[in-house]
Formats: sequence, C-alpha cells, structure tokens
Amino acid sequence: MIIVGELINSSRKAVASAIETRDEDAIRKLAKDQAENGAHYIDVNAGSFKTGEPEHLRWLVEKVQEAVDLPCCIDSPNPRAIEAGLMVHRGAAMINSVSLEKRRHEDLIPLVAGTDFKVIALCMSDSGMPRTADDRIRTAEALLNLLTKHRVKMDHIYVDPLVQPVAADQTFGREFLAAIEKIMSHFEGIHTICGLSNVSFGLPLRKFLNQTFMAMAIAKGLDAAILDPLDKRMMANVLAAEALAGRDRFCMNFLRSYREKRLQL
Amino acid sequence: MIIVGELINSSRKAVASAIETRDEDAIRKLAKDQAENGAHYIDVNAGSFKTGEPEHLRWLVEKVQEAVDLPCCIDSPNPRAIEAGLMVHRGAAMINSVSLEKRRHEDLIPLVAGTDFKVIALCMSDSGMPRTADDRIRTAEALLNLLTKHRVKMDHIYVDPLVQPVAADQTFGREFLAAIEKIMSHFEGIHTICGLSNVSFGLPLRKFLNQTFMAMAIAKGLDAAILDPLDKRMMANVLAAEALAGRDRFCMNFLRSYREKRLQL
Repeated sequence: MIIVGELINSSRKAVASAIETRDEDAIRKLAKDQAENGAHYIDVNAGSFKTGEPEHLRWLVEKVQEAVDLPCCIDSPNPRAIEAGLMVHRGAAMINSVSLEKRRHEDLIPLVAGTDFKVIALCMSDSGMPRTADDRIRTAEALLNLLTKHRVKMDHIYVDPLVQPVAADQTFGREFLAAIEKIMSHFEGIHTICGLSNVSFGLPLRKFLNQTFMAMAIAKGLDAAILDPLDKRMMANVLAAEALAGRDRFCMNFLRSYREKRLQL
Repeated sequence: MIIVGELINSSRKAVASAIETRDEDAIRKLAKDQAENGAHYIDVNAGSFKTGEPEHLRWLVEKVQEAVDLPCCIDSPNPRAIEAGLMVHRGAAMINSVSLEKRRHEDLIPLVAGTDFKVIALCMSDSGMPRTADDRIRTAEALLNLLTKHRVKMDHIYVDPLVQPVAADQTFGREFLAAIEKIMSHFEGIHTICGLSNVSFGLPLRKFLNQTFMAMAIAKGLDAAILDPLDKRMMANVLAAEALAGRDRFCMNFLRSYREKRLQL
C-alpha cells in the first residue's frame, strides 16, 4: 500500500500558521513524524492562501525534503503553484491532481507529459462530480487515454474515483467501491488512490467509519491512500486488511508491526 | 445482515458443563443475551459429546425457544442429532450444514427436501477443503443444483465458502473474498454466510483481524454471518460496513444504534 501522508495541509490551522510564520521546525516535524509512521509520499498543500501559494508550496517542498528522504505529493488547484513546487523538488513527485475538467488538464498535461512523475487522475469532469461506478469508469478511461497519449506510464497513474458521503446518498459508498474494483481489473498496471474521509461526512464516529471503509476499499483492490499516518488505528487497519487480502507475504509486515508494537488498537 | 449467534456451542467449556448438568438458566441467558444484541438465529451445537448428542440438541432447542422467540440454527456433524433437534423446533430452522460430501448430503437432503428450512451449503466435498475461489464456485454450484432439485428455494440457501487461515497460505483470504463476490453475483437470490474466525488462526490480534475481515467480506457482498453478537466491536463493524455498502437505508440503523449507545468501539 502506497501511503501519502496528508497532514501538511493549510486547511489545518496549525499548518497555515506554520506556513505564514515560516516555522521550519513545525513543518520538518510533521514530515518526519509521517515518514516514521509509514508514509511513502508527503502531501504538501497551501491551497487556502489566496496570494503567495506558489512561494508557499516551494518553501514546503524544500523544508519537507530537507527533513526526510521522500518525494512529495504536490497538491494544488493552481497549476502555477504545482510548477513552483516541482522546480525545487528532488526525485519524481506525485501530482495531485489532473482531472477531466478542460482547464485543469490543459494546464497540467504539459507539466507531466513524458515525465516520470506520478499523477493522480481525479474522476471529475466538466459535467461535475461522478455518482455511479460507470460515471467514474468513463472519466477514468478518458483520463488514462489522455495521459498515456502524453507518455505518462500506466504504472505512474493513480486514479482517484472520488469518494462522496453515504449520508447524502446511500449508494455513494457502494458505487465508489465498485469503481475501485472495475478500474483495478480493467486497466493493467494502474493504481487507485483516495482520500476517503469524505465518505463519513455528516455522520457520527467518522474516524471509525473511515477506518472500516479503508478495509472495504482494500478488499476491492485499492492500493494507495491519502491519509493521516499518525492515526494508529487506521494504519493497523491497513496492515490487517493487506494481510487478509493476500498482499503481505507470509503476513510478515503485519507480524513485524505487531512485534514492534506499532499495531495500536 | 442475518446474524447467527454462535455462543451456545459445546466446544466452549461453560456451555458443555451447562448441557451436562442441564443448567437451563445458563442456556436461557445465553439465548437472551444474543437475541438482545442482534442475533436472528441462535446456533445450537452439542457436537463435542460422543454420546447423547441427539438428546442434548433437542434439549438445547427447547430451552432456547422457551427463552427467545427466534429460530435455531441446528449445528451438528450427526444427521440423527439434527433430526432430533428439528423434532421439537418451532418455525423454520436453519440447518448447519449440508456439504457435497456424499455421506453428508445423502443423509441430510431427505431432511430438508421440500421444506422451508434455511440450509447452510458448505463448500466442502469428498475431495477435501477448497483452496481457490473456483474450487468454491464449483462446489457451490453442485450443491445449489442438488438442493433446488429437491425443492429447497434459492432464497433459503446460505452458501458458506469456508474460510481458511491466511497464516497457512496468504491467498486464502483473497480467494474466499473472491468466492463471496462471484457467488453473490452469479446466483440470483442466494445468500452467503460464514464463521470467519478461522481466517486469523495462527496470528496475533485475532479479534481485530476478524473484525477487519468482516468489513471486507461485507464489501464483497456477504449478507449473513455466524458470530458472537456480544462482541460489541464486531457488531459495530457490521453496522458501519452495512451503512458504507449502501445496505442501510439513510444510515438509519447505524444512526439509531449510535443514539442508543450500542456502537461501542
């Protein structure tokens, strides 16, 4: 399971303040904590800043990569900010995200064409948010065609089927899960990724619901996730689900984590 | 989700002793506790007794049905014991289980032919335990043909694909889950059921693994389970997974359970 640590996001008050005051230590600590708890990528997002986002993102990439030897997941609605982050990034970054919205992919395809960047392909188009599994497959297929035509390798594409809250429509979880399974079985070499906390929006016990949904998504083939690696129970669920899904040889990862007392329930 | 409460089983020492001493109160309490915590069927099993099993099972059925207004799941390797339990059972019992082993189905088919009993169809044949999803589908299909030929309705058949431990072979969980999905999508009206605790045999944190596996199996379509209804976290996982899988209209069951403080994590 590829884990993208989600904590360095300016929608979190402490992070916004650390960005504003250029508090390097705070950002470095968040990067290190996530790396030590299993992150493979560190997401950086300064999207809540109306001005200066490109500079903020560049600074975040620098500070994160000074602290840890990991690539970033550069996360912005603004292509100029993504570009600024990429300018200082070492190694192959992950881009969060290209979608089928015309403006969005016209801006971003030139940045990723022919590169070794990992690309999150979000199942969103100009006709709006997807509702059914079929909506998602159609958008995913169009995005894959577009990306591979521009020499992005299949194995570098992470489709995000876009989770929507089950409290808004009880079919939303099921359709999302069906999309994961279809995408993983139809497109050889592809990955799926998501930030799944939206699924529990409007319900109580959100952390518990998110943890449960993670196990369900792994059963359907999800192989990457944007999450909080410091959420011990979530990480334990990921490890357990991977062992149960046959993705952990001899359950070695699960057993080692248990022995090292990293499985905290 | 159809819940079969598994606690009245003579492999548990306290239950064996209650059966031997004819401790009605102990059996009644176990039946009531399970009913109050969500069981739809009460499993009765006296299989550890080498002699007197038929009488024990008959007594258990009587005591359970004096205590609660629920059907029993009559669980025995011995067709004579199942018959004895059925003699005193009120309503449509569940039979645990018919398999494709010749001796087994020759003995049991006459008992269930043309009845309204629910029948657990265990994916086991004379060639042994299943390993792959395809092994399970083949056995399930043969069992369904046999049962429906003998006028057991599809909707009364609960296929148990038979969980095996992932510690023995890492593919065992994945193949089981794939079987659930295939059976549920290939055979209209059918149910799937299992006692899933075997999956974690040989590993630490078994309860946690079983709870996680339950959510994964529900994502694949499992709609019945043999479990301990007093395991609060397991029951919470079932409720959460059902809401997330779109099987709980407006999440009402989840929300009501939350308000009634029955979701204990």
